Amino acid sequence: MNKSTLITFQNIIRILKKYWSDKGCNVLHPIDLEVGAGTSHPFTFFGAINNEPMSAVYLQPSRRPNDGRYGKNSYRLQHYYQLQVIIKPPPQNIQDIYINSLKSIGIDLKKNDVQFIEDNWSNPSLGACGVGWEVWMNGIEITQFTYFQQMGGISCKQISVEITYGLERLAMHVQQKNNVYDIIWDENLFNKITYGDFFLKNEQDQSAYNFEYANVDFLLYCFNQYEKDIQHLINLKKPLPISAYELALKAIHCFNLMNARQAFSVTERQDYILRLHKLTKSIAKTYCKLMRKI
Amino acid sequence: MNKSTLITFQNIIRILKKYWSDKGCNVLHPIDLEVGAGTSHPFTFFGAINNEPMSAVYLQPSRRPNDGRYGKNSYRLQHYYQLQVIIKPPPQNIQDIYINSLKSIGIDLKKNDVQFIEDNWSNPSLGACGVGWEVWMNGIEITQFTYFQQMGGISCKQISVEITYGLERLAMHVQQKNNVYDIIWDENLFNKITYGDFFLKNEQDQSAYNFEYANVDFLLYCFNQYEKDIQHLINLKKPLPISAYELALKAIHCFNLMNARQAFSVTERQDYILRLHKLTKSIAKTYCKLMRKI
Repeated sequence: MNKSTLITFQNIIRILKKYWSDKGCNVLHPIDLEVGAGTSHPFTFFGAINNEPMSAVYLQPSRRPNDGRYGKNSYRLQHYYQLQVIIKPPPQNIQDIYINSLKSIGIDLKKNDVQFIEDNWSNPSLGACGVGWEVWMNGIEITQFTYFQQMGGISCKQISVEITYGLERLAMHVQQKNNVYDIIWDENLFNKITYGDFFLKNEQDQSAYNFEYANVDFLLYCFNQYEKDIQHLINLKKPLPISAYELALKAIHCFNLMNARQAFSVTERQDYILRLHKLTKSIAKTYCKLMRKI
Repeated sequence: MNKSTLITFQNIIRILKKYWSDKGCNVLHPIDLEVGAGTSHPFTFFGAINNEPMSAVYLQPSRRPNDGRYGKNSYRLQHYYQLQVIIKPPPQNIQDIYINSLKSIGIDLKKNDVQFIEDNWSNPSLGACGVGWEVWMNGIEITQFTYFQQMGGISCKQISVEITYGLERLAMHVQQKNNVYDIIWDENLFNKITYGDFFLKNEQDQSAYNFEYANVDFLLYCFNQYEKDIQHLINLKKPLPISAYELALKAIHCFNLMNARQAFSVTERQDYILRLHKLTKSIAKTYCKLMRKI
């Protein structure tokens, strides 16, 4: 692949954002909190349960502490990037629009085997579930496609479609790399920089932190306190669901870190997920009540 | 201003990122933690004190709890966006390059009064200081220009230049808006959306949270615990400065929230800043020691 045709990681992000922007999506920016996926962004969480149309595209750094591999695995990371598209109501030809987005980053659909595999997705902590597909290309999952049926435990009156691109996997394919750290992150007149230049050390250190050193007692203390504070914020005379939701995201990240530290048994784990589910549900209910009053 | 020439908030971000990318900067993405400014991004903090050249441009959502105004002030926000450029070593004609970036977003320098006003900047919590200028246009500060002399309390052997654009103020100027919430955030074939559509409710709720409901006892507990955990992480046999730095950013945000809650006296406030300064300094020292070993 010569220099002029190299699609860097940044180009993929730029092209996909532009592509969806041209299709009518508003460009948003990441939430500045540690989240496991683009779905957790407040815009998607609250947007999915209100009655307004919405359409957005945004990048979201995503952290899954348990997926750390000390920089030794060629495609698994505890910190990576998702590109999230969320549209309500979904365009009828959304699958075609998506397929064309792959062409826009140089994927030849005649030479690659793209399959839609049914996959009913759920995220119990967010009280979210939906029907949809995993999109596989040559045997690797590159995108998740979901029609939300519930968010925050509330049945969505209007269905949203969410498309989540796994950017690293797309980049590995487009750039023909076997190792995520070899992806060309960016390139300009003066230098060429790889994904590993920015993130290899980060993966090594943060894997050690996630699995060995994150302070479990403190995380548990925080989890319990976030729970109390969330209940306080949504029970105020003038409830604050946005602030409460941010605390819920922090509680979820505490849970994910405790999980990486193997801090609990299978039953305890379920208990924590249930508590998170109740919290996000009560936030969603509070938000809906307030929306009805406006 | 007709539709075809309207420079939306997103266009300003896109154009400036492209502009600096074309000048040799790598495009990075925001750190997914609550920070007060783009300077806090780990890339800038660690990059400023190592001996490698660096050049990057990135957007950073920035939170300054004390600046919340319940959505009632036309230009002051507790959550806003900075565009950060960081280059080491600085190009000799960096002022000219910057001035041309203003032209790229449609600012006519013949019609507007742009002044460089000397301003020696410091951020004691990060142990950062430098010489530089505030850039004022028609009496409003639009950019901060700094040559770092210290970061993490360590004297920088190689000087970096940091350019921080106040994006909302630039957009208000370019779009001729008197109120930040009237900025056109994005526009496409299907809709036109304002800054207020996305952030007015957020400013109202989060201002109430910051000033009235953030849990001071809990924040103080966290601050103390982050301090202990940071000391633990940098005193490990294999120290983890990256993970420690993220905890320091969390401690700084706790401090900023306690500050908004008026939780301490002037003397106490200084004491907390000193503790933060010591923490970031010890992280920077640990990082430098590790760099020398590589």
